[in-house]
Amino acid sequence: MIVPHVPDVHPAWLPPEAFRAVGSRRVLVLAGDPGDAGPVATVRAEVAAAGERHGGAVVAPGEAADLVLALSSSGPLPAAAQALLGPEIGAEGFLLGRRDGVTVVLADDPAGLLYGWFEVVRLGEAAFGEAPSGETASGETAVGEAAVREAAVSGAAVSGAAAQVHRPALRRRMLDHWDNIDVHPVMGQVERGYSGGSIFWRDGLLTEDLTRLRAYGRLLAATGVNAVAINNVNVHATEAHLLTDRLGEVAAIAAELRPYGIRVHLSVNFASPIVLGGLDTADPLDEGVREWWAGTTARVYETIPDFGGYVVKADSEGQPGPFAYGRSHADGANMLADALAPHGGVVHWRAFVYDHRQDWRDRSTDRARAAHDHFAPLDGQFRDNAILQVKYGPMDFQTREPISPVIAAMPATRLAVELQVTQEYTGQQRHVCYLGPMWSEVLGFRFWGPGERTVAEVAAGGGLVAVSNVGDDPYWTGHPLAQANLYAFGRLAWAPELGPAAILDEWIGLTFPGAPDAVRGTLHEMMDGSWETYERYTAPLGVGFMVRPGHHYGPDVDGYEYTPWGTYHFADRDGVGVDRTRATGTGYTGQYPAPWSEVYESLAECPDELLLFFHHVPYEHVLQSGTTVVQHIYDTHFAGAEEAAGMRLAWEKVAGSVDAALYTRVKERLDEQVRCAEEWRDQVNTYFLRKSGVPDEHGRRIH
Amino acid sequence: MIVPHVPDVHPAWLPPEAFRAVGSRRVLVLAGDPGDAGPVATVRAEVAAAGERHGGAVVAPGEAADLVLALSSSGPLPAAAQALLGPEIGAEGFLLGRRDGVTVVLADDPAGLLYGWFEVVRLGEAAFGEAPSGETASGETAVGEAAVREAAVSGAAVSGAAAQVHRPALRRRMLDHWDNIDVHPVMGQVERGYSGGSIFWRDGLLTEDLTRLRAYGRLLAATGVNAVAINNVNVHATEAHLLTDRLGEVAAIAAELRPYGIRVHLSVNFASPIVLGGLDTADPLDEGVREWWAGTTARVYETIPDFGGYVVKADSEGQPGPFAYGRSHADGANMLADALAPHGGVVHWRAFVYDHRQDWRDRSTDRARAAHDHFAPLDGQFRDNAILQVKYGPMDFQTREPISPVIAAMPATRLAVELQVTQEYTGQQRHVCYLGPMWSEVLGFRFWGPGERTVAEVAAGGGLVAVSNVGDDPYWTGHPLAQANLYAFGRLAWAPELGPAAILDEWIGLTFPGAPDAVRGTLHEMMDGSWETYERYTAPLGVGFMVRPGHHYGPDVDGYEYTPWGTYHFADRDGVGVDRTRATGTGYTGQYPAPWSEVYESLAECPDELLLFFHHVPYEHVLQSGTTVVQHIYDTHFAGAEEAAGMRLAWEKVAGSVDAALYTRVKERLDEQVRCAEEWRDQVNTYFLRKSGVPDEHGRRIH
Repeated sequence: MIVPHVPDVHPAWLPPEAFRAVGSRRVLVLAGDPGDAGPVATVRAEVAAAGERHGGAVVAPGEAADLVLALSSSGPLPAAAQALLGPEIGAEGFLLGRRDGVTVVLADDPAGLLYGWFEVVRLGEAAFGEAPSGETASGETAVGEAAVREAAVSGAAVSGAAAQVHRPALRRRMLDHWDNIDVHPVMGQVERGYSGGSIFWRDGLLTEDLTRLRAYGRLLAATGVNAVAINNVNVHATEAHLLTDRLGEVAAIAAELRPYGIRVHLSVNFASPIVLGGLDTADPLDEGVREWWAGTTARVYETIPDFGGYVVKADSEGQPGPFAYGRSHADGANMLADALAPHGGVVHWRAFVYDHRQDWRDRSTDRARAAHDHFAPLDGQFRDNAILQVKYGPMDFQTREPISPVIAAMPATRLAVELQVTQEYTGQQRHVCYLGPMWSEVLGFRFWGPGERTVAEVAAGGGLVAVSNVGDDPYWTGHPLAQANLYAFGRLAWAPELGPAAILDEWIGLTFPGAPDAVRGTLHEMMDGSWETYERYTAPLGVGFMVRPGHHYGPDVDGYEYTPWGTYHFADRDGVGVDRTRATGTGYTGQYPAPWSEVYESLAECPDELLLFFHHVPYEHVLQSGTTVVQHIYDTHFAGAEEAAGMRLAWEKVAGSVDAALYTRVKERLDEQVRCAEEWRDQVNTYFLRKSGVPDEHGRRIH
Repeated sequence: MIVPHVPDVHPAWLPPEAFRAVGSRRVLVLAGDPGDAGPVATVRAEVAAAGERHGGAVVAPGEAADLVLALSSSGPLPAAAQALLGPEIGAEGFLLGRRDGVTVVLADDPAGLLYGWFEVVRLGEAAFGEAPSGETASGETAVGEAAVREAAVSGAAVSGAAAQVHRPALRRRMLDHWDNIDVHPVMGQVERGYSGGSIFWRDGLLTEDLTRLRAYGRLLAATGVNAVAINNVNVHATEAHLLTDRLGEVAAIAAELRPYGIRVHLSVNFASPIVLGGLDTADPLDEGVREWWAGTTARVYETIPDFGGYVVKADSEGQPGPFAYGRSHADGANMLADALAPHGGVVHWRAFVYDHRQDWRDRSTDRARAAHDHFAPLDGQFRDNAILQVKYGPMDFQTREPISPVIAAMPATRLAVELQVTQEYTGQQRHVCYLGPMWSEVLGFRFWGPGERTVAEVAAGGGLVAVSNVGDDPYWTGHPLAQANLYAFGRLAWAPELGPAAILDEWIGLTFPGAPDAVRGTLHEMMDGSWETYERYTAPLGVGFMVRPGHHYGPDVDGYEYTPWGTYHFADRDGVGVDRTRATGTGYTGQYPAPWSEVYESLAECPDELLLFFHHVPYEHVLQSGTTVVQHIYDTHFAGAEEAAGMRLAWEKVAGSVDAALYTRVKERLDEQVRCAEEWRDQVNTYFLRKSGVPDEHGRRIH
């Protein structure tokens, strides 16, 4: 087991410098026989490598240690660790405490030990109670003020004597890669990928040097991710074979990710029994089909005993599914669940089912209703290992959507919430758009009102899933600052209550170790509010989809207005927005439980930022903010473009304080962001001025 | 020399049946030694093949003949021919007459003899003065009533004793192929091609079986075309090499087309001296560059002595050009003209130069002005063998544009007018859109008013050029009825005064020989007015470019409104159109000579069909037709979609009367045309209702 190092690829949040605090200490690992592929071996290798670099030491039982990492079942424990034992820890969790000058990590299982290790890395000197003499906390440690504040809130501080138990809030924390083996002439190799080609495949074959995959697994483990689906949910001809004759490639990838506690999942084509098996049906109730899946799945587990399971996009945007056989989506999902159950696998069945050949003339059909209409009636019919994977909003990863009512509607079904780390509709990694705040809002949303369960709690037994933003780009994510989104996803999936600013602060500390305070300040200034900035200069008041069709980059107010995609704003010379009320519209508001069913229904109470999602209103309608809709459009678009320009100014001030190549990469993308934000501002403002005829109150230039 | 036959490819307007009249006669050819590659050999082979099929005979001098085809220099001529000698014929022309029961074709050169032969084929029985006994003219001959009427007008009737001389009105009648060797992932192999792949190249190599090329040359010769440029004006990396190391392929193509009097031209990359020659500049005044072109061109002519010349798209949409070196387009064109002059070649230099990175916010820049602004000042500076190739309109092949003022502005320059047979903006060969009427209007336009010269006369010494609509499709043109456009182009380039309905009638007679009168009637009903129908359901009143960006198929009213392409309509809640007047607009009207400079400037006099091209008007503006602009939009869009539906109804009535496969192909495309026309109707009408708020006078449903 070797800690992976990939030359010419950015180390992201695990640069060598981030290991200084742990690497300069004496560390005892008590975890039995490591074997050579599991997380225990990984922890031992990490400890050894950090110590080697920073002058610390791996010590033996009985020797004095600054840090003890131990499985709770390993005995006998050193006194400090023994004294902290007590609270139940559980799967993947760890106990972190400090006693008698010794920092202790205890876990019930190897994965927990690994997560505990990375927690100590993240805390840096703070994990050891005090800054070493001669070094200042701000300059040398990996954790800034905000994060320390946040850690105190979430109970992760270790400076006192008490121990804290950390457990993942969501059972499965998963990244879905929309990678293809083949390169699509239009979509490229990674669908909706903005970071180069796939890290898994190159030139139609498994990537030769898998070191990078291992490094990727390590980065993910440091955030708490424990599952990866390696291929596109649109499973094309070549990729379908990963399930059978190209299974060896899946096994090779699994071998690289296993040391980091990550299980590999595979997107499969619902029609596989036909495509791969030569059957004449894929009917989920057909005995031959069920046998084919059972046999095929058994062979997968013979090859990859810890295989995670399947991901399925069925009856969606042209993909095959159970509808073709008059079967329900529960029938489809359960068939695969039954094939996986004997082996401990799960099927992630996506709820993204809607009519993508809608007639724009027909205002009674509402795409937002589709997932609830299809799936809510099926609640209680899914197997326990069939996880219904629901996009956070009812449409498709827009900058602002209400939370999908499906999440509240299926108490007897295991649900996973799906986010999009890849910035399909949020700037495609050419724009700075830190999504932590959006996800934090999503996960903290309470369908049944204050004091009731959050989305994260509803999905605790299912999981949090996101489409990855990683490719073979030297910075992993195209835009270096988009790394923060990948980091934040993992952290929020582990601990949804963490504040997005605090997570960003952690990320800054780890990624830019030793950078001056000014850099930290600048990055917060640029990123903390960047999602709202992006929202301001793009689609207003929850209306969505004012993007160029197909590639989804840049403005096109009417781009989707007359298409079959069900994504309309209905702007005319008098007003704009979609009437989704029960009273006069599509009735979508009725899919929510109270109080939201009433709040969204009410023109007066509906939150401004979602107004046009739920209501069609005149341009002169006065928002809760006190301004009119059309003036809000003008104001936010001018403000958003200004803020983008402000980001660039801020970044220009840190030239010389960060790596020159990284500086240049970010600067180039900021130039594009500023250009594009101005284009958004001008197109949207001009469009609504031409349509409404209402001049800007402030007399600014609209073309 | 063999008359080419390509199995499984539609014979277009040269089916065997079309040769019945000539093939059943005794034919004498007097034209000296044919050699084996020129048009004389072609005529002899044609005569022999037709006679063999239909029972006629090739006769020797002195034997009785029904048809004499003779070069005027061949002596001694039969008495009937000798008697008709007299009027000057000239290059490519022919004399056609009938005397003493003998039909006579005389020509001064082999090409003229070939064109005379195809004229006789086209006339069928009418060429021989009377229908053979037992056969009716309407059922058996290739020429219908309208064509006979037309022929009488243009002096081609041969039933009397007088002879008529036919000469091509335009010197060069040329098809430009936008074919690539490689297949572009988005554009396909043929840029803006809607008929499959290239007929020249397949799988990166010259097509193995060149018979189809020969058949193509034969079809073109029958219409009068005498030049073909074989590759895309956007000359990519692979295709650049046709000029040098892949010249053999050009020679092979030239060998196939030579028997039909067609010279081959090549699109070249202006940067060839750098790309192919390894020079560090392509500056047209650089001595090394000039030498490179001279040497390269000399090698081309060593290989292909009758090579036609070059076609160049320079400083246009990203192509390199003389601007990079601070040189004028005359400098660029003349350099190539000088290289070609010693060999008798010409350069076609395209005037399609404009700013394709325009700012939509800037209403002072006007793409329509660009060609005139760039080229008019250069009049008189071009060599005699440098032909400035000007698109018929100032924009880009829209369904309706005013005629480009460049054509009137350069009396001291040889001009070629460029049309588009491939239906990029006119339905992409999925819609029936017979373009003869448009081209007839273009060629007959008189810049200086009634009685003054037509566009065809201005371009007589230059030529008429069109982008081909041919690919490797079994019907040549995708839509079988789109063959009529290819046919009409050649005929109009030869004789611009021919009526489009008469040309269509010729085409029907040749292509559907022996079909019942009902078929002829139906095709006229469907096609005669199909251009205007297409105009009705697409962009109104000359406004243009309401198409989906990129592929240009289907409606998108705002699709180009906020792009850098300079193609806007400026619709707002009050009105629509582009102000190109001198008084208040971009001044484009001033590029026309009187009277058009005044007519277009005047809101009252500007023709309705171009109103929005020249003026921005309120929706309630009353047209010369008496209706308002917005009501006109509604009315024409309802009418156009209805007419498309009518075409399909008409076609359904001839099921059983035409070849079944052809029927089905046309029917499928009509289904798509009807669907698409309704989509156009609904999107355009909805767009303008939403914007204007003006209801339809007739209360029809607008969504």
